[in-house]
Amino acid sequence: MAGPVVELPVTIKVAAICGSLRKASYNRGLIRAAIETSKEEIDGMEVEYIEISSLPMINPDLEVDGTYPPEVEDFRRKILRADSCIFASPDYNYSITPPLKNALDWGSRPSNVWSGKTAAALSAVGGGRRAQYHLRQIGVFLDLHFINKPEFYLNAHRPPRKFNDDGDLVDSETKYKLKEVLVSLHTFTLRLRGNC
Amino acid sequence: MAGPVVELPVTIKVAAICGSLRKASYNRGLIRAAIETSKEEIDGMEVEYIEISSLPMINPDLEVDGTYPPEVEDFRRKILRADSCIFASPDYNYSITPPLKNALDWGSRPSNVWSGKTAAALSAVGGGRRAQYHLRQIGVFLDLHFINKPEFYLNAHRPPRKFNDDGDLVDSETKYKLKEVLVSLHTFTLRLRGNC
Amino acid sequence: MAGPVVELPVTIKVAAICGSLRKASYNRGLIRAAIETSKEEIDGMEVEYIEISSLPMINPDLEVDGTYPPEVEDFRRKILRADSCIFASPDYNYSITPPLKNALDWGSRPSNVWSGKTAAALSAVGGGRRAQYHLRQIGVFLDLHFINKPEFYLNAHRPPRKFNDDGDLVDSETKYKLKEVLVSLHTFTLRLRGNC
Amino acid sequence: MAGPVVELPVTIKVAAICGSLRKASYNRGLIRAAIETSKEEIDGMEVEYIEISSLPMINPDLEVDGTYPPEVEDFRRKILRADSCIFASPDYNYSITPPLKNALDWGSRPSNVWSGKTAAALSAVGGGRRAQYHLRQIGVFLDLHFINKPEFYLNAHRPPRKFNDDGDLVDSETKYKLKEVLVSLHTFTLRLRGNC
Repeated sequence: MAGPVVELPVTIKVAAICGSLRKASYNRGLIRAAIETSKEEIDGMEVEYIEISSLPMINPDLEVDGTYPPEVEDFRRKILRADSCIFASPDYNYSITPPLKNALDWGSRPSNVWSGKTAAALSAVGGGRRAQYHLRQIGVFLDLHFINKPEFYLNAHRPPRKFNDDGDLVDSETKYKLKEVLVSLHTFTLRLRGNC
Repeated sequence: MAGPVVELPVTIKVAAICGSLRKASYNRGLIRAAIETSKEEIDGMEVEYIEISSLPMINPDLEVDGTYPPEVEDFRRKILRADSCIFASPDYNYSITPPLKNALDWGSRPSNVWSGKTAAALSAVGGGRRAQYHLRQIGVFLDLHFINKPEFYLNAHRPPRKFNDDGDLVDSETKYKLKEVLVSLHTFTLRLRGNC
Repeated sequence: MAGPVVELPVTIKVAAICGSLRKASYNRGLIRAAIETSKEEIDGMEVEYIEISSLPMINPDLEVDGTYPPEVEDFRRKILRADSCIFASPDYNYSITPPLKNALDWGSRPSNVWSGKTAAALSAVGGGRRAQYHLRQIGVFLDLHFINKPEFYLNAHRPPRKFNDDGDLVDSETKYKLKEVLVSLHTFTLRLRGNC
Repeated sequence: MAGPVVELPVTIKVAAICGSLRKASYNRGLIRAAIETSKEEIDGMEVEYIEISSLPMINPDLEVDGTYPPEVEDFRRKILRADSCIFASPDYNYSITPPLKNALDWGSRPSNVWSGKTAAALSAVGGGRRAQYHLRQIGVFLDLHFINKPEFYLNAHRPPRKFNDDGDLVDSETKYKLKEVLVSLHTFTLRLRGNC
C-alpha cells in the first residue's frame, strides 16, 4: 500500500554577486542584509555571496582546450548550483560595472551557466536605474528571467541614514523593501519551476 | 463518492498586435501566419488579432471620471481576456512605432491590463533589434514577462522571398522559426501559470 | 573702397515640442519658461513652440506621390526652419510618449527634416531619465546632435512648488537650471555651425 | 611690423582603443587599418593605438591620495592628449566588453579625461549594434560627442573575406566604409573646435 504523497520542502538557492570591488561597498552590505533576511524571514530561500574579485579580465585566449582558468571554473560551478541570482551593483557612468560585466561574460562562455535562472537587481546608490536596464538587456542573451517588480533603487547618501559604519543595512524601511524583492524572486522562481 | 480528478485542457489565449498601420504590413502577415500555425500545429494555443488603428492618440484629458473613450475601453477588455501577447512591429527610427506605443500606454492606464502576462516580439523587417529592446524595457514597468529565446528578426527584403503579393508568409524556414517562438511562448506561459 | 567686415549677429532658431497632449502639461509649462528666458536673458536665441496635436497617427499609406497630409507638411516646414530642437516630455512607461514619437517619425520621412540639428531634452516629471535615453538613441538615426550636459530632470511633484495653478514655472532654482540648458544648447549650436 | 596671419594646419589626434584583449582580434585589425588610412589618405588626422590590457580591474580603493595606479595614470595622460576617440569593440552578450568599460571608467575618475572629445564606434563582428548603443549612453555622462553617421558594423564572418591570416583588413569595400567614418569624425571634430 502506497503511503501519502509527501511534498518535500523546496529550497531556492540564490547566488548573490556584488558589482563593486570596494571593501566598504554599500551594495555588498545589501547582500549581507539579503542573506540575513532570507535566513530569518523567508522559508525555503538560501542566499550565498559569490566572490568575483579574483576573476581575470576576460580574454578568450585564456581558454585552452575548452577549459577556463581555475578561478573561472570555480566561479562557474558556483553559479551552476544556483536557481536564481541577485546582482547588487552601483552604476558606473550610466551602465554596469566592469567586474560585474566580467563575471557575466565568463559565465556566458560555453556552456552558458546563467541559462534559465531567475534574477533580481539591487542598487545601493542613486543612478542605478540606468545600469539596471543595461543589465536586463544583457539578461536576454544570457537567458536570465528578471523579476519585473519591485525594482530596488536606494539612494544611500540621502537621509535618513541607511548603513552604519560597518556598512551594514540599518534602515528598517529599506530592509522591508529588500524583503519584498526577495519574496518576489522566491515566488517567481517557484512559478517558473512549476512548484507553485 | 468523488470521481477521478480530470485535468481540463488548458488553452492559452494570445492577443496579437501589429505595430504598423499599413494595409500591406509584413508584420500583420506574420500575425496571420501565427494564427494559422497555432491553429494547425499547436495544441492549446489560440492567437487573436487585436486591431489598434482606431485608438485615439493618448491624452490623459480624455479620461473622464475614470472611464476611457469607448475604443479604448473595448481594446482594454480584449487584452484583459488574454494570457499572453505578441507584438509584431517594424522599427521606426531605432525604437518602437507610435501606434504600438499608444496601445501599450492606453493599456497601462489604471488598472494596468498588461500586468503579469507573458509576451513575445516579432519583427518582419531588418532593424527590429533596436526597437525590441525598447519594448522589453517598457515591459518591465507594464509587468510583461517576455520570453528570452528565440528572438525573432526577419529581413523580409533579403532573398529568398518571404511573403507573397498578398503579404502572406510563404517561406518555410521562416514559418518554422515563427513556430518555435509560439512554442516557447506557450511553454513559458504554462510554466508561469503553474501548469507545466 | 571696402568698409570694415561687419559680423552680423547670429540668431539660433529653436523649435520646441511638448510630448504631452494634456492642456495642463507641466512640460508645456517648461517650454513657455524657455521662450521667456531666451527672450529676456539670452542674446541670439529664439524659441518657438511647435504644436503637434493635429498630426495624424503615422501610416506610410497616407503618403501619396511623395506628399504628406497637410498638417504633416506644415509641421515639417516649421522644423526645417529651425537650427535646433527642444523636446519637453514626460516618460510614459519607461519610454517616450506616442505623440512625440509620432512627430519624430513624420519628420524623419524623406527627406529627414531633423538632420544635422542640435537638440536638448527636458522632463518636468520624475522618471524622464529612461525616456531621454530612448530619445537619444532615436536621435542617432535622425542625425540630431544632443547636448550632453546639463541633463534636465525635474520632479514637479516634490516640494518646493515648481509650477503655479496656471502651469507656469515659478521656482527660481529650476528657472536657473533651465537657463543653463538653453545656454549650453546655444553654445553647442554655434560651435557646430562654426560660429564660435 | 606684424606679418600676415598664417593659419597653421590643424592635426586632429585620435586615441584608438580596442575592446577585446585577444591577440588576433579583428577589432584591433580595424584600428591598424584606421591608422594606415589616416596616414595615407586623410590630411590632418593622426590615429594612435592605446593599449588597455595592463589596466587593473577598477576599484576605487586603488585610488590613494588622489592618485591612481601608474598604468592608470599613464593611460589617462594618453587620452588627455587626444582630441578624439575611436572605440573598436566586439559585443559581449548584448553590451560592451569588460576591458573597454574598465578603460572608460578609469578615465572618468576625477577629473574626467574624456570630457568634450569627439568619438566614433567600430564593430568588426556581427551584433555590435546593441553594444554601440550602450556605449553611446555611457558617452552622455562622459561628455563624449559621438558622430551620428556613418555607423560602422561589420560582419567579419560573412563572405567575402574581410581580414587575412594576420588579422589585417583586406576588403576594399570595408576599407572605404572605414575611411568614411574617419572623414566624418575629422569633420565633426573640426566643427566642434570652431576650425571648420
